[in-house]
Amino acid sequence: VTPETAPNRTEVRRADRDATDEAPEILVQGLVAHVGFVIEGQPYVIPFTYHFDPASPGKLYLHGSTKGRALEHFASGAPICVEVSLLDGLVYSKTAFFHSMNYRSAVCFGRARIVEDEAEKRAVFEKLIGRYFEGRTAPRDYTSPTAEHLSVTTLVRLTIENWSAKARRGGPNGPHDKDPDAPGSAGVLDLDRPKPA
Amino acid sequence: VTPETAPNRTEVRRADRDATDEAPEILVQGLVAHVGFVIEGQPYVIPFTYHFDPASPGKLYLHGSTKGRALEHFASGAPICVEVSLLDGLVYSKTAFFHSMNYRSAVCFGRARIVEDEAEKRAVFEKLIGRYFEGRTAPRDYTSPTAEHLSVTTLVRLTIENWSAKARRGGPNGPHDKDPDAPGSAGVLDLDRPKPA
Repeated sequence: VTPETAPNRTEVRRADRDATDEAPEILVQGLVAHVGFVIEGQPYVIPFTYHFDPASPGKLYLHGSTKGRALEHFASGAPICVEVSLLDGLVYSKTAFFHSMNYRSAVCFGRARIVEDEAEKRAVFEKLIGRYFEGRTAPRDYTSPTAEHLSVTTLVRLTIENWSAKARRGGPNGPHDKDPDAPGSAGVLDLDRPKPA
Repeated sequence: VTPETAPNRTEVRRADRDATDEAPEILVQGLVAHVGFVIEGQPYVIPFTYHFDPASPGKLYLHGSTKGRALEHFASGAPICVEVSLLDGLVYSKTAFFHSMNYRSAVCFGRARIVEDEAEKRAVFEKLIGRYFEGRTAPRDYTSPTAEHLSVTTLVRLTIENWSAKARRGGPNGPHDKDPDAPGSAGVLDLDRPKPA
Protein backbone atom coordinates (compact mmCIF):
# COMPACT_ATOMS: atom_id res chain seq x y z
CA VAL A 1 0.00 0.00 0.00
CA THR A 2 1.45 3.35 -0.99
CA PRO A 3 0.16 6.67 0.35
CA GLU A 4 -1.80 7.16 -2.88
CA THR A 5 -3.67 3.90 -2.43
CA ALA A 6 -4.10 4.02 1.33
CA PRO A 7 -7.78 3.50 2.02
CA ASN A 8 -10.06 6.35 2.98
CA ARG A 9 -7.34 8.88 3.61
CA THR A 10 -9.80 11.72 3.94
CA GLU A 11 -12.90 9.91 5.10
CA VAL A 12 -14.76 11.64 7.93
CA ARG A 13 -16.24 8.72 9.83
CA ARG A 14 -18.91 10.64 11.72
CA ALA A 15 -21.18 11.88 8.97
CA ASP A 16 -22.81 14.40 11.32
CA ARG A 17 -19.46 16.16 11.69
CA ASP A 18 -18.45 16.23 8.04
CA ALA A 19 -17.72 19.79 6.96
CA THR A 20 -15.50 19.19 3.95
CA ASP A 21 -17.22 21.97 2.01
CA GLU A 22 -15.94 24.38 4.67
CA ALA A 23 -12.29 23.40 4.25
CA PRO A 24 -11.36 26.56 2.27
CA GLU A 25 -12.96 28.89 4.85
CA ILE A 26 -11.21 27.09 7.72
CA LEU A 27 -7.86 27.47 5.96
CA VAL A 28 -8.59 31.16 5.36
CA GLN A 29 -9.42 31.80 9.02
CA GLY A 30 -6.64 29.75 10.60
CA LEU A 31 -3.33 31.19 11.73
CA VAL A 32 -1.23 28.10 12.42
CA ALA A 33 -0.69 25.04 10.22
CA HIS A 34 0.22 21.90 12.12
CA VAL A 35 2.40 20.00 9.68
CA GLY A 36 2.93 16.26 10.01
CA PHE A 37 5.72 14.38 8.26
CA VAL A 38 7.66 11.16 8.68
CA ILE A 39 11.38 10.56 8.97
CA GLU A 40 12.52 6.95 9.30
CA GLY A 41 9.12 5.87 10.55
CA GLN A 42 8.94 8.55 13.25
CA PRO A 43 6.07 11.06 12.97
CA TYR A 44 6.76 14.74 13.62
CA VAL A 45 4.33 17.63 13.95
CA ILE A 46 5.60 21.19 13.68
CA PRO A 47 3.59 24.45 13.66
CA PHE A 48 4.10 26.83 10.74
CA THR A 49 2.72 30.09 9.53
CA TYR A 50 1.06 29.59 6.17
CA HIS A 51 -0.76 31.17 3.29
CA PHE A 52 -3.88 29.88 1.60
CA ASP A 53 -5.85 31.67 -1.08
CA PRO A 54 -9.33 30.27 -1.79
CA ALA A 55 -8.95 31.50 -5.38
CA SER A 56 -6.12 28.93 -5.75
CA PRO A 57 -7.43 26.08 -3.61
CA GLY A 58 -5.03 23.44 -4.89
CA LYS A 59 -2.05 24.76 -2.99
CA LEU A 60 -0.95 25.98 0.41
CA TYR A 61 2.30 27.74 1.29
CA LEU A 62 4.30 27.07 4.45
CA HIS A 63 6.76 29.60 5.75
CA GLY A 64 9.80 28.86 7.86
CA SER A 65 13.36 29.84 8.43
CA THR A 66 15.98 28.18 6.25
CA LYS A 67 17.10 26.17 9.25
CA GLY A 68 15.24 23.15 10.46
CA ARG A 69 14.87 19.46 9.90
CA ALA A 70 11.32 19.83 8.64
CA LEU A 71 12.05 22.03 5.70
CA GLU A 72 15.00 19.92 4.60
CA HIS A 73 12.65 16.98 4.56
CA PHE A 74 9.96 18.83 2.66
CA ALA A 75 12.33 19.47 -0.19
CA SER A 76 12.25 15.77 -0.93
CA GLY A 77 8.58 15.79 -1.96
CA ALA A 78 7.65 13.26 0.71
CA PRO A 79 3.97 13.01 1.72
CA ILE A 80 2.92 15.53 4.35
CA CYS A 81 -0.28 16.30 6.21
CA VAL A 82 -1.36 19.83 7.16
CA GLU A 83 -4.00 20.30 9.83
CA VAL A 84 -5.65 23.63 10.73
CA SER A 85 -8.16 23.86 13.58
CA LEU A 86 -10.37 26.66 14.86
CA LEU A 87 -11.65 26.38 18.40
CA ASP A 88 -15.05 28.07 18.62
CA GLY A 89 -16.33 27.12 22.05
CA LEU A 90 -16.23 24.83 25.06
CA VAL A 91 -19.45 22.88 25.55
CA TYR A 92 -20.53 21.92 29.07
CA SER A 93 -23.33 19.58 30.00
CA LYS A 94 -25.16 18.38 33.08
CA THR A 95 -23.79 14.93 32.21
CA ALA A 96 -20.01 14.26 32.17
CA PHE A 97 -20.10 12.31 28.93
CA PHE A 98 -21.67 15.17 26.95
CA HIS A 99 -18.97 17.76 27.55
CA SER A 100 -17.50 18.67 24.19
CA MET A 101 -15.87 21.36 22.07
CA ASN A 102 -17.18 23.40 19.20
CA TYR A 103 -14.50 23.41 16.55
CA ARG A 104 -13.83 23.41 12.85
CA SER A 105 -10.87 21.46 11.56
CA ALA A 106 -9.41 20.90 8.10
CA VAL A 107 -6.74 18.46 7.02
CA CYS A 108 -4.86 18.52 3.72
CA PHE A 109 -2.72 15.78 2.21
CA GLY A 110 -0.12 16.17 -0.49
CA ARG A 111 3.51 16.66 -1.34
CA ALA A 112 5.55 19.79 -0.93
CA ARG A 113 8.45 21.43 -2.70
CA ILE A 114 10.60 24.41 -1.87
CA VAL A 115 9.68 27.44 -3.99
CA GLU A 116 12.77 28.53 -5.89
CA ASP A 117 11.17 31.16 -8.12
CA GLU A 118 11.90 34.59 -6.65
CA ALA A 119 8.82 36.28 -8.15
CA GLU A 120 6.50 33.62 -6.68
CA LYS A 121 8.26 33.88 -3.33
CA ARG A 122 7.95 37.64 -3.27
CA ALA A 123 4.28 37.62 -4.24
CA VAL A 124 3.38 35.04 -1.60
CA PHE A 125 5.25 36.84 1.19
CA GLU A 126 3.39 40.05 0.47
CA LYS A 127 0.05 38.23 0.49
CA LEU A 128 0.99 36.33 3.65
CA ILE A 129 1.64 39.59 5.51
CA GLY A 130 -1.73 40.90 4.33
CA ARG A 131 -3.45 37.74 5.50
CA TYR A 132 -2.02 37.94 9.03
CA PHE A 133 -2.28 41.74 9.27
CA GLU A 134 -5.38 42.82 7.42
CA GLY A 135 -4.84 45.92 5.33
CA ARG A 136 -1.09 46.02 5.92
CA THR A 137 0.65 46.97 2.69
CA ALA A 138 4.04 48.00 1.34
CA PRO A 139 5.49 50.57 1.13
CA ARG A 140 3.12 52.41 3.46
CA ASP A 141 3.51 50.04 6.41
CA TYR A 142 6.73 48.16 5.68
CA THR A 143 9.48 47.79 3.12
CA SER A 144 9.14 44.84 0.74
CA PRO A 145 11.56 41.90 0.96
CA THR A 146 15.00 42.45 -0.46
CA ALA A 147 16.60 39.81 -2.68
CA GLU A 148 18.90 38.97 0.22
CA HIS A 149 16.01 38.47 2.62
CA LEU A 150 14.21 36.29 0.10
CA SER A 151 17.34 34.16 -0.28
CA VAL A 152 17.51 33.32 3.43
CA THR A 153 13.81 32.60 3.87
CA THR A 154 12.29 29.32 2.80
CA LEU A 155 8.86 29.05 1.28
CA VAL A 156 7.31 25.64 0.71
CA ARG A 157 4.42 24.98 -1.64
CA LEU A 158 2.13 22.08 -0.78
CA THR A 159 0.17 20.72 -3.71
CA ILE A 160 -3.05 19.58 -2.06
CA GLU A 161 -4.05 16.14 -3.35
CA ASN A 162 -7.08 15.84 -1.14
CA TRP A 163 -8.59 17.38 1.96
CA SER A 164 -11.42 16.96 4.42
CA ALA A 165 -12.92 18.96 7.24
CA LYS A 166 -15.07 18.32 10.25
CA ALA A 167 -16.95 20.54 12.65
CA ARG A 168 -19.02 20.43 15.81
CA ARG A 169 -21.55 23.16 16.56
CA GLY A 170 -24.31 23.98 18.97
CA GLY A 171 -25.08 23.32 22.59
CA PRO A 172 -24.62 20.19 24.68
CA ASN A 173 -26.58 17.07 23.76
CA GLY A 174 -27.02 15.56 27.23
CA PRO A 175 -30.39 14.09 28.20
CA HIS A 176 -31.00 16.70 30.92
CA ASP A 177 -29.46 19.79 29.36
CA LYS A 178 -32.78 21.28 28.30
CA ASP A 179 -34.44 20.58 31.64
CA PRO A 180 -34.10 23.68 33.85
CA ASP A 181 -35.11 21.62 36.89
CA ALA A 182 -32.32 19.07 36.49
CA PRO A 183 -29.32 19.71 38.75
CA GLY A 184 -26.09 21.15 37.32
CA SER A 185 -25.41 23.58 34.51
CA ALA A 186 -25.18 23.37 30.73
CA GLY A 187 -24.16 25.72 27.96
CA VAL A 188 -21.41 26.89 25.65
CA LEU A 189 -18.41 28.99 26.59
CA ASP A 190 -17.91 30.86 23.34
CA LEU A 191 -14.38 31.72 22.32
CA ASP A 192 -13.84 34.77 20.17
CA ARG A 193 -13.40 34.20 16.50
CA PRO A 194 -11.22 33.69 14.70
CA LYS A 195 -9.50 31.44 17.19
CA PRO A 196 -6.69 29.17 16.09
CA ALA A 197 -6.42 25.82 17.80
CA VAL B 1 17.61 3.69 11.99
CA THR B 2 14.60 3.03 14.23
CA PRO B 3 12.56 5.80 15.85
CA GLU B 4 14.47 5.28 19.08
CA THR B 5 17.80 5.89 17.40
CA ALA B 6 16.70 8.65 15.03
CA PRO B 7 19.14 11.51 15.53
CA ASN B 8 18.19 14.64 17.42
CA ARG B 9 14.52 13.91 17.68
CA THR B 10 13.93 16.75 20.10
CA GLU B 11 16.73 19.10 19.21
CA VAL B 12 15.70 22.74 18.97
CA ARG B 13 18.05 24.05 16.32
CA ARG B 14 17.70 27.73 17.11
CA ALA B 15 19.15 28.01 20.58
CA ASP B 16 17.59 31.44 21.09
CA ARG B 17 14.15 29.85 20.81
CA ASP B 18 14.71 26.86 23.06
CA ALA B 19 12.12 26.80 25.83
CA THR B 20 12.17 23.14 26.78
CA ASP B 21 11.92 23.98 30.47
CA GLU B 22 8.52 25.53 29.70
CA ALA B 23 7.10 22.36 28.14
CA PRO B 24 4.96 21.46 31.19
CA GLU B 25 3.43 24.93 31.41
CA ILE B 26 2.65 24.95 27.68
CA LEU B 27 0.90 21.58 28.01
CA VAL B 28 -1.06 22.88 31.00
CA GLN B 29 -2.24 25.99 29.15
CA GLY B 30 -3.05 24.38 25.80
CA LEU B 31 -6.49 23.21 24.81
CA VAL B 32 -5.84 21.18 21.67
CA ALA B 33 -3.26 18.44 21.07
CA HIS B 34 -2.24 18.01 17.46
CA VAL B 35 -1.41 14.32 17.21
CA GLY B 36 0.79 12.97 14.43
CA PHE B 37 1.00 9.32 13.49
CA VAL B 38 1.93 7.21 10.50
CA ILE B 39 -0.05 4.56 8.64
CA GLU B 40 1.69 2.82 5.75
CA GLY B 41 4.13 5.68 5.35
CA GLN B 42 1.43 8.36 5.23
CA PRO B 43 1.53 11.01 7.99
CA TYR B 44 -1.73 12.07 9.64
CA VAL B 45 -2.38 14.94 12.06
CA ILE B 46 -5.61 14.97 14.08
CA PRO B 47 -6.67 17.41 16.84
CA PHE B 48 -7.66 15.94 20.21
CA THR B 49 -8.72 17.18 23.58
CA TYR B 50 -6.19 16.06 26.16
CA HIS B 51 -5.21 16.02 29.80
CA PHE B 52 -1.78 16.77 31.20
CA ASP B 53 -0.92 17.04 34.88
CA PRO B 54 2.48 18.60 35.69
CA ALA B 55 2.61 16.44 38.82
CA SER B 56 2.78 13.39 36.49
CA PRO B 57 4.87 14.79 33.65
CA GLY B 58 5.69 11.44 32.05
CA LYS B 59 2.28 10.95 30.54
CA LEU B 60 -0.41 12.70 28.59
CA TYR B 61 -3.97 11.51 27.97
CA LEU B 62 -5.81 11.89 24.67
CA HIS B 63 -9.56 11.79 24.53
CA GLY B 64 -11.63 10.74 21.55
CA SER B 65 -14.72 8.89 20.55
CA THR B 66 -14.42 5.14 20.13
CA LYS B 67 -14.71 5.60 16.40
CA GLY B 68 -11.85 6.75 14.25
CA ARG B 69 -8.83 5.48 12.45
CA ALA B 70 -6.44 7.31 14.75
CA LEU B 71 -7.47 5.60 17.95
CA GLU B 72 -7.43 2.17 16.38
CA HIS B 73 -3.87 2.88 15.34
CA PHE B 74 -2.87 4.19 18.76
CA ALA B 75 -3.82 0.90 20.34
CA SER B 76 -0.89 -0.67 18.53
CA GLY B 77 1.72 1.25 20.52
CA ALA B 78 3.18 2.81 17.37
CA PRO B 79 5.26 5.97 17.77
CA ILE B 80 3.25 9.17 17.89
CA CYS B 81 4.04 12.86 18.19
CA VAL B 82 1.88 15.33 20.13
CA GLU B 83 2.27 19.05 19.48
CA VAL B 84 0.62 21.83 21.51
CA SER B 85 1.05 25.48 20.54
CA LEU B 86 0.00 28.74 22.17
CA LEU B 87 -0.23 31.78 19.96
CA ASP B 88 0.62 34.86 22.03
CA GLY B 89 0.92 37.64 19.48
CA LEU B 90 1.44 38.75 15.90
CA VAL B 91 4.66 40.72 15.42
CA TYR B 92 4.80 43.40 12.74
CA SER B 93 7.88 45.23 11.57
CA LYS B 94 8.83 48.10 9.30
CA THR B 95 10.71 45.49 7.26
CA ALA B 96 8.86 42.59 5.56
CA PHE B 97 11.42 39.98 6.62
CA PHE B 98 11.01 40.74 10.33
CA HIS B 99 7.31 40.02 10.62
CA SER B 100 6.90 37.15 13.03
CA MET B 101 4.71 35.51 15.66
CA ASN B 102 5.04 35.26 19.39
CA TYR B 103 4.28 31.69 20.33
CA ARG B 104 5.14 28.89 22.68
CA SER B 105 5.11 25.36 21.34
CA ALA B 106 5.79 21.97 22.89
CA VAL B 107 6.24 18.63 21.20
CA CYS B 108 6.15 15.21 22.89
CA PHE B 109 7.29 11.89 21.48
CA GLY B 110 6.32 8.48 22.72
CA ARG B 111 4.02 5.52 22.35
CA ALA B 112 0.39 5.32 23.36
CA ARG B 113 -1.95 2.65 24.62
CA ILE B 114 -5.69 2.60 25.22
CA VAL B 115 -6.54 2.87 28.92
CA GLU B 116 -8.57 -0.18 29.88
CA ASP B 117 -8.70 0.37 33.64
CA GLU B 118 -12.07 1.88 34.54
CA ALA B 119 -10.85 3.62 37.70
CA GLU B 120 -8.02 5.36 35.80
CA LYS B 121 -10.43 6.32 33.03
CA ARG B 122 -12.94 7.73 35.47
CA ALA B 123 -10.34 9.73 37.37
CA VAL B 124 -8.84 11.23 34.22
CA PHE B 125 -12.21 12.23 32.79
CA GLU B 126 -13.10 14.10 35.96
CA LYS B 127 -9.75 15.92 35.92
CA LEU B 128 -10.07 16.65 32.23
CA ILE B 129 -13.41 18.40 32.75
CA GLY B 130 -11.83 20.44 35.56
CA ARG B 131 -8.94 21.40 33.32
CA TYR B 132 -11.18 22.71 30.51
CA PHE B 133 -13.77 24.23 32.85
CA GLU B 134 -11.99 25.59 35.88
CA GLY B 135 -13.80 24.84 39.11
CA ARG B 136 -16.39 22.61 37.49
CA THR B 137 -17.05 19.62 39.73
CA ALA B 138 -19.42 16.71 40.16
CA PRO B 139 -22.07 16.36 41.46
CA ARG B 140 -22.69 20.09 41.81
CA ASP B 141 -22.25 20.93 38.12
CA TYR B 142 -22.68 17.60 36.34
CA THR B 143 -23.24 13.91 36.95
CA SER B 144 -20.12 11.72 36.84
CA PRO B 145 -19.61 9.22 34.02
CA THR B 146 -21.66 6.05 34.16
CA ALA B 147 -20.02 2.70 33.48
CA GLU B 148 -21.83 2.64 30.15
CA HIS B 149 -20.51 6.04 29.16
CA LEU B 150 -16.99 5.04 30.14
CA SER B 151 -17.28 1.92 28.00
CA VAL B 152 -18.07 3.88 24.84
CA THR B 153 -15.42 6.56 25.33
CA THR B 154 -11.81 5.94 24.50
CA LEU B 155 -8.96 7.29 26.55
CA VAL B 156 -5.40 6.95 25.33
CA ARG B 157 -2.33 7.29 27.53
CA LEU B 158 0.84 8.56 25.87
CA THR B 159 4.01 7.65 27.71
CA ILE B 160 6.25 10.62 26.96
CA GLU B 161 9.75 9.43 26.03
CA ASN B 162 11.08 12.90 25.34
CA TRP B 163 9.86 16.39 24.65
CA SER B 164 11.08 19.82 23.65
CA ALA B 165 9.63 23.29 23.46
CA LYS B 166 10.37 26.53 21.69
CA ALA B 167 9.15 30.07 22.06
CA ARG B 168 9.43 33.48 20.50
CA ARG B 169 8.80 36.60 22.57
CA GLY B 170 9.11 40.35 22.35
CA GLY B 171 8.84 42.96 19.67
CA PRO B 172 10.06 42.98 16.09
CA ASN B 173 13.79 42.80 15.41
CA GLY B 174 13.95 44.83 12.22
CA PRO B 175 16.74 47.38 11.77
CA HIS B 176 14.35 50.34 11.71
CA ASP B 177 11.73 49.23 14.23
CA LYS B 178 13.09 51.41 17.03
CA ASP B 179 13.48 54.46 14.84
CA PRO B 180 10.33 56.57 15.13
CA ASP B 181 11.36 58.58 12.07
CA ALA B 182 11.58 55.54 9.79
CA PRO B 183 8.51 55.03 7.61
CA GLY B 184 6.00 52.31 8.42
CA SER B 185 4.81 50.80 11.67
CA ALA B 186 6.11 48.19 14.09
CA GLY B 187 4.75 46.44 17.15
CA VAL B 188 2.99 43.43 18.55
CA LEU B 189 -0.67 42.58 18.21
CA ASP B 190 -1.18 40.76 21.48
CA LEU B 191 -3.62 37.88 21.54
CA ASP B 192 -5.38 37.10 24.78
CA ARG B 193 -3.97 34.27 26.83
CA PRO B 194 -4.35 31.42 27.02
CA LYS B 195 -4.68 31.12 23.28
CA PRO B 196 -4.46 27.71 21.66
CA ALA B 197 -2.87 27.53 18.25
